[in-house]
Amino acid sequence: MRDLDATNISSAFLAACGPETSPRLRRVLESLTRHLHGFAREVALNHDEWRTAIGFLVEAARLTDDKRNEFILTSDVLGLSSLVDMVNSAPVGTPSSVLGPFHLRGAPMLAVGGDLLRDNEGSVVFVEGRVLDPDGRPLASAVLDVWQTAANGLYSNVDLAQEPYNLRARMTVGADGRYAFSTVRPAPYTVPDDGPVGELLRATGRHPWRPAHFHFIVEAPEHRTLVTELFPDDDPYIDHDAVFGVRRGLVVKFERHVAPAPLPRGFALAEAEADIPSFETVAFDFVLAPL
Amino acid sequence: MRDLDATNISSAFLAACGPETSPRLRRVLESLTRHLHGFAREVALNHDEWRTAIGFLVEAARLTDDKRNEFILTSDVLGLSSLVDMVNSAPVGTPSSVLGPFHLRGAPMLAVGGDLLRDNEGSVVFVEGRVLDPDGRPLASAVLDVWQTAANGLYSNVDLAQEPYNLRARMTVGADGRYAFSTVRPAPYTVPDDGPVGELLRATGRHPWRPAHFHFIVEAPEHRTLVTELFPDDDPYIDHDAVFGVRRGLVVKFERHVAPAPLPRGFALAEAEADIPSFETVAFDFVLAPL
Repeated sequence: MRDLDATNISSAFLAACGPETSPRLRRVLESLTRHLHGFAREVALNHDEWRTAIGFLVEAARLTDDKRNEFILTSDVLGLSSLVDMVNSAPVGTPSSVLGPFHLRGAPMLAVGGDLLRDNEGSVVFVEGRVLDPDGRPLASAVLDVWQTAANGLYSNVDLAQEPYNLRARMTVGADGRYAFSTVRPAPYTVPDDGPVGELLRATGRHPWRPAHFHFIVEAPEHRTLVTELFPDDDPYIDHDAVFGVRRGLVVKFERHVAPAPLPRGFALAEAEADIPSFETVAFDFVLAPL
Repeated sequence: MRDLDATNISSAFLAACGPETSPRLRRVLESLTRHLHGFAREVALNHDEWRTAIGFLVEAARLTDDKRNEFILTSDVLGLSSLVDMVNSAPVGTPSSVLGPFHLRGAPMLAVGGDLLRDNEGSVVFVEGRVLDPDGRPLASAVLDVWQTAANGLYSNVDLAQEPYNLRARMTVGADGRYAFSTVRPAPYTVPDDGPVGELLRATGRHPWRPAHFHFIVEAPEHRTLVTELFPDDDPYIDHDAVFGVRRGLVVKFERHVAPAPLPRGFALAEAEADIPSFETVAFDFVLAPL
């Protein structure tokens, strides 16, 4: 290893890894260091730039705690998180998308057609569809977990004015695979931009906005769990998501209806004949790949 | 950006960078994300592995403070720090090597031939040589900054039993370019291995040892500053430096002499006819590239 130079350092690294190294770890480290070294060689990374990168990580470390993770955010804005979703996405079925940091386990169960809206302000939305296998057969035992922002763009675990599980629910679909709930239209929001990621976004002329979205985790026996999001096609940030989460197959139309349009069927809120001057409807079928 | 997939996400990232982005930042980020994405695609990085990587950074963050930087150590053991040294090394002259975290500014000035050994225990070493330009001409105004461990493998800023500037000095070379000092032989030591870097080393069957070395910063007007190290060729870790700092051109012979061998000339310690039953000598000329 004393004849080390810029062209053989990747091999020297690999040679230093002993037989104790698991084959997968060896494969991952081989690729990681080859790309890391390739990057440094390609741009002839200088010491000041290396120090800037170390400083970025130290600053990210300072901001990272139980509630905030600037390393995940870095992965998000570099497109790495989305790419990991893509390379692990099932080859058939609904595309996956980022889980994000706002999910809470144990959201209350809601019956099909149930109401998440309650006293939330904003545009009323009726969301419905089915959970299917790739042949179009309903997956009757599927469970959906949905979470979203209020109309102010904040999640319940960030906005202390909201109930802890506001706009969060789990739902077992019907025998026909149907899920349905009424809710409020989610709002676009910004990722935290008061740290090194924010500096990076500003240095590259990027904004910190994510388009509005519903988050879903959809699970069914014998099928791959789907972690995904649905986005309104009229969102101003739909083509400029700061974390690269949008996929064409996840962009949905929010159909606007003005009274006296008939209220949709099969929703607790509609059956209560609530006084709704206008509302939106969203229809989307989730398709889960078999295991 | 809604037609995003694993093959075009690198272009999508670059397209998101606006005209505000400086050309150099654009170049660095383009290469960085292309390699980062290439890595994730190549190994089909899964979510568990991604979480492990984020967990590594969070743990590194927890250990990083004013005195310890686990991010730098990560860069060191992956060979990145050495590669940055290599790609920025002058094409002529003495190879550079890692600065490391133990340098202190403002070490006391020592005359040519002066003694660093004082009351340090261990094998006495007389080090001498010249600072030259690539044509072999002495650089009479050069200044050396040297620092090293004691025989216990610890630096003065880590080992509180040592004087603050023990085994550290700056020296202006003579008109003939000569530098010389007497000191103790430095010892191999381990990089900190009680954190995530240590876990990585163990998972890959690597040890945390660095071969013994002298650190040098050599400066001269109109010449590139040289940051480098010298290593004894008989060190047990000479071919397995945990941070990839060794270069063939920096491996030197520690010539052993047993009394009544004549003491070398031009050293304060030798002139004092100290009682030295055996000693070592090291000869090395530093060659600085012109700016």
